[in-house]
Amino acid sequence: MTASPSPRPATKEKPKLAFRPLPVPQVDVHGFWGDRADAVATRTADILYERCVEARMLEQIDPDRPSPGIVIPFHSPSPDEADRQGAEFTGSTVTTQMFWDSDLGKTIETAAYSLYRRKNPELEKKIDAVIDMYGKLQQEDGYLSSWYQRIQPGKRWTNLRDCHELYCAGHLIEGAVAYYQATGKRKLLDIMCRYADHIASVLGPEPGKKKGYCGHEEIELALVKLARVTGEQKYMDLAKYFIDQRGQRPHYFDEEARARGADPKAYHFKTYEYSQSHRPVREQDKVVGHAVRAMYLYSGMADIATEYGDDSLRVALDRLWDDLTTKNLYITGGLGPSAHNEGFTSDYDLPNESAYAETCAAVGLVFWASRMLGMGPNARYADMMERALYNGSISGLSLDGSLFFYENPLESRGRHNRWKWHRCPCCPPNVGRMVASIGSYFYSLADDALAVHLYGDSTARFDIAGTPVQLTQASRYPWDGAVEITVEPQAPLEFTLHLRIPAWSSSATLEINGEAVDLEDMTSDGYAAIRRSWKKGDRVRLDLEMPIERLYANPEVRQDAGRVALSRGPLIYCVEASDNDSRLHRLTLPRTAGIEAHEAPELLGGVVTLSATARADAGDGWQDGLYRREPPASVETRLTAIPYYAWDNREPGEMLVWLRDG
Amino acid sequence: MTASPSPRPATKEKPKLAFRPLPVPQVDVHGFWGDRADAVATRTADILYERCVEARMLEQIDPDRPSPGIVIPFHSPSPDEADRQGAEFTGSTVTTQMFWDSDLGKTIETAAYSLYRRKNPELEKKIDAVIDMYGKLQQEDGYLSSWYQRIQPGKRWTNLRDCHELYCAGHLIEGAVAYYQATGKRKLLDIMCRYADHIASVLGPEPGKKKGYCGHEEIELALVKLARVTGEQKYMDLAKYFIDQRGQRPHYFDEEARARGADPKAYHFKTYEYSQSHRPVREQDKVVGHAVRAMYLYSGMADIATEYGDDSLRVALDRLWDDLTTKNLYITGGLGPSAHNEGFTSDYDLPNESAYAETCAAVGLVFWASRMLGMGPNARYADMMERALYNGSISGLSLDGSLFFYENPLESRGRHNRWKWHRCPCCPPNVGRMVASIGSYFYSLADDALAVHLYGDSTARFDIAGTPVQLTQASRYPWDGAVEITVEPQAPLEFTLHLRIPAWSSSATLEINGEAVDLEDMTSDGYAAIRRSWKKGDRVRLDLEMPIERLYANPEVRQDAGRVALSRGPLIYCVEASDNDSRLHRLTLPRTAGIEAHEAPELLGGVVTLSATARADAGDGWQDGLYRREPPASVETRLTAIPYYAWDNREPGEMLVWLRDG
Repeated sequence: MTASPSPRPATKEKPKLAFRPLPVPQVDVHGFWGDRADAVATRTADILYERCVEARMLEQIDPDRPSPGIVIPFHSPSPDEADRQGAEFTGSTVTTQMFWDSDLGKTIETAAYSLYRRKNPELEKKIDAVIDMYGKLQQEDGYLSSWYQRIQPGKRWTNLRDCHELYCAGHLIEGAVAYYQATGKRKLLDIMCRYADHIASVLGPEPGKKKGYCGHEEIELALVKLARVTGEQKYMDLAKYFIDQRGQRPHYFDEEARARGADPKAYHFKTYEYSQSHRPVREQDKVVGHAVRAMYLYSGMADIATEYGDDSLRVALDRLWDDLTTKNLYITGGLGPSAHNEGFTSDYDLPNESAYAETCAAVGLVFWASRMLGMGPNARYADMMERALYNGSISGLSLDGSLFFYENPLESRGRHNRWKWHRCPCCPPNVGRMVASIGSYFYSLADDALAVHLYGDSTARFDIAGTPVQLTQASRYPWDGAVEITVEPQAPLEFTLHLRIPAWSSSATLEINGEAVDLEDMTSDGYAAIRRSWKKGDRVRLDLEMPIERLYANPEVRQDAGRVALSRGPLIYCVEASDNDSRLHRLTLPRTAGIEAHEAPELLGGVVTLSATARADAGDGWQDGLYRREPPASVETRLTAIPYYAWDNREPGEMLVWLRDG
Repeated sequence: MTASPSPRPATKEKPKLAFRPLPVPQVDVHGFWGDRADAVATRTADILYERCVEARMLEQIDPDRPSPGIVIPFHSPSPDEADRQGAEFTGSTVTTQMFWDSDLGKTIETAAYSLYRRKNPELEKKIDAVIDMYGKLQQEDGYLSSWYQRIQPGKRWTNLRDCHELYCAGHLIEGAVAYYQATGKRKLLDIMCRYADHIASVLGPEPGKKKGYCGHEEIELALVKLARVTGEQKYMDLAKYFIDQRGQRPHYFDEEARARGADPKAYHFKTYEYSQSHRPVREQDKVVGHAVRAMYLYSGMADIATEYGDDSLRVALDRLWDDLTTKNLYITGGLGPSAHNEGFTSDYDLPNESAYAETCAAVGLVFWASRMLGMGPNARYADMMERALYNGSISGLSLDGSLFFYENPLESRGRHNRWKWHRCPCCPPNVGRMVASIGSYFYSLADDALAVHLYGDSTARFDIAGTPVQLTQASRYPWDGAVEITVEPQAPLEFTLHLRIPAWSSSATLEINGEAVDLEDMTSDGYAAIRRSWKKGDRVRLDLEMPIERLYANPEVRQDAGRVALSRGPLIYCVEASDNDSRLHRLTLPRTAGIEAHEAPELLGGVVTLSATARADAGDGWQDGLYRREPPASVETRLTAIPYYAWDNREPGEMLVWLRDG
């Protein structure tokens, strides 16, 4: 048995200025995110575990039980079948999936972060039992995959393209790191270090090793986390190898297919764009293929760019970022419009009702954006992280933390409703772990700087140059743009505080200890940089004007032509049937209509609604037919919009983000 | 071998006033429909036969060749698969379909009608050879199904629900009737009479017979044709039985499933609404399920309503007609929005880009509407027949007669293009036979009346009370609304001439032998009824005002909200990329814009285009992102529209029917 090294920072040949997110336990969130995190800690974390049990995942990993043996492949022969199974988890069918380990990994990760917020000894005990099963399951050589050991024995390392083998390892690694940090228990971490060592013995650049990498990226960013927590450079190097090798010629997936006697052309998804392995990553300039895979790849690339100071990766990432954000992103921060490949189609193709916009993809965009901030504060990335966080990602979780969306459309006829579970249950634990670790997205720390990316009631604890500092935000954000920050170093301490000035704010003002400061001079890349010697009780007040905005899409987006969306601060709004008398497609929001914001503390856990006097097409005089020469009459009506993330938390009904602009 | 009776009119217990379409050879069409019919006679008819050969259909029916044996079921496991196969017929795969007989039946029917227009001895010889194969294939007892004899032997009459057994018989009957009428050759007619006799010996109301009917309606209307051409009431009665029995309890499809050891609930389409057998036909009040099946059923019901004077069927048909035309019909006369069931979804659900609107369904609506006219002239039906004829049905055939659409969307991004063939090749011969027999839709004849349903250059020959009459229309219709009709009875003759006054015409004037006549007094149900003693050379001039119209959809149709469509006379228009500078979704047609009609004799075989000064969203200033606070600037542009039926006959490009209304 390989001894696992002690946790310590990864050593690098040449240290770089790198910003790393604050670890989860160092940030307490309250207010908006506190409510979300409470829902996860009190409900979602337990639900995830229970659903995994109901789905009989434990039967797959537990060597003391008979193997479930019944295999229903992920790509079901019939879309109906998929719909039916996806609609509601019944518990009556044993569906064994090749990616169960990943769902358990994310469930462990969600549970781990939730333990910081709320002690939960019952859940911790259950997770320990799962970890014990993995301990028993692990083979002598370190190999660990419940699918390949229990369902498809003898086939390990024969199909990296399709079978999520390294992807599962990645999620278990992330779960292991989080659980170790939360509980101090090393067992899963040790297991995963041994497995990572085994992976490095099989795959890698050295002669005699397979030149493979995973068809579903994930292990890259997981190995970075493992390297950071263990201090082992070898894991970082393995992550870099996976990034560097991807898409090289001869193509590994071709060779691997031939090796197992298959025709490489008989590939379900037809193009390696599906897994972003169509060309080496540094040559990629379009976001393509499966959206979650893309986001995880770019996240790993960003980590490696930061850790190795690799500008060639950074250049590629910026091209990809441009491509995503100027041509292929929903206004909600959702992405990947098509169910066909769970991913990207063509530029400016952003259908609203049929939007796939998988919860995992928006969560993945948060991951990527936050890692781009590792290379220094830049609102280009942080603004988009905030957009995806407040809209297209948390829309995937019901307000009470118990129900989930897989797809996040921007228009609904009322039949797209949250479900208890999904046969491909990737999204619930993904949004769960993101919300439960939200504090680490608020702040990132460099050697002598702290960057504040997100605003909201919270307290952060960190060290700079060995001096402990506490930073407290008091704010009603996102409902109000006033943020009061108190900085409390244990001793006076010089460092730079970077404060993000969101692009949505039409004007911002800054006061330090009551004195106005000219923001313009100190702001670059969308962040105000306040360098000073901080002492206990220093107060910074940032006032972000939070106007209600009408937003219009690039006219290349045909689905949004003649339409307008509403936003206020970081929130995108939608209209829902519950708040509006008219059928939603009949509404037109006149350009001249004044829009008002109202506090609604009793509504949807407390929100600010927007309302305006609008016009509605009248239904009179259509008894005789579908079509006529006279346009519908127009009547005055009141339109009320709610934040998009909160939709479908009441009775089922229509929803619409892009209103007719009149 | 059963002797086939001589052709003579069907005898009925009580004769009714019934209008029957003029037989195809009694009408010569010129002008617009002459061009279409020429394309079918000179190209489509031969192409259909050749494609059937390339698809290796003859190998299935020819007993002298080995059975093809390779079965690829219609409902392919993967939609990709279906797409790939549907996109282009390659000839390299043997796909054997249970409905090949129907495609050959319709191909024979198209060839038959085309022979009136153009002698084609080579094609006639080939059809004769196909008929010889069917002659050899027919079993001693009269049974005839290439699928059940050659591919699934021993299973006849075990799955009427799914396997198109009677549907195939119906299309071969229609082909037999048409071929007999066109060539005088009785061979296929005799074959099909023997088969119909066999069917009547197996299925029917009498004790000991199966109480079945076909999952895909078609044989009902075919048996009516067979009864009319042979004069055999037994075929009419069998058709009526199929109509009457449909949807009765206990449900035949349930019993049949159990008889073959299957669970009736394990039905792919889940509901018998799919085949309109969810309840007895007289109790039906919603158009449901597979759209082509529905149209064929209603056609058969209309025939039986006419032949038996059955008002209970007529009442049901009128309910269904209302439901279709006021809630479930595209403005093009297309119908059945969903690919999932090739049919209807919910009221007012009429998506444009994803519209299935199968060519066969619009052709089926023409069939139904024309049969509703059997109960007397009524523009309620004829207006819709014209709408479907000029728009959503012939859009399925390229102008040169060589390429086809299966789906007829109302919006395209330029990737929906005509194909050579389809693995389910139902549409090409369906639109082929409809166009080749167009003359019979122009006119229908009762004992002492002739109804003119459609206008356009044509000559009709018919007898009334034993006196031959020739009626000639001179008109540039549909480009111009002036119609000059000359009536030439061999001897003076009293009868009623019914002339349709289309609903789209804002005003119409009538002159008889140069004298103005007050239309209002003589018009009922949308037809002017001119009763007089006609003598040679009598001239009727009808002037239909043909304004350019803006049409608006019922506001319940969310997909058309804020949109406007253009029409002129019977034609619905669309904009296509070829004629417009701007991306089509960027265009807005102001309500105040004047719209002009222009003759374009060189364009698309000669059309009238519509054009107007419109606005287009400008693409400036969007370098930095997808969304911004300022709406797109608006620039003036010229919009040009062409008739919808003619789209996708040039280079591939975008197409749009419903323009933004501004």
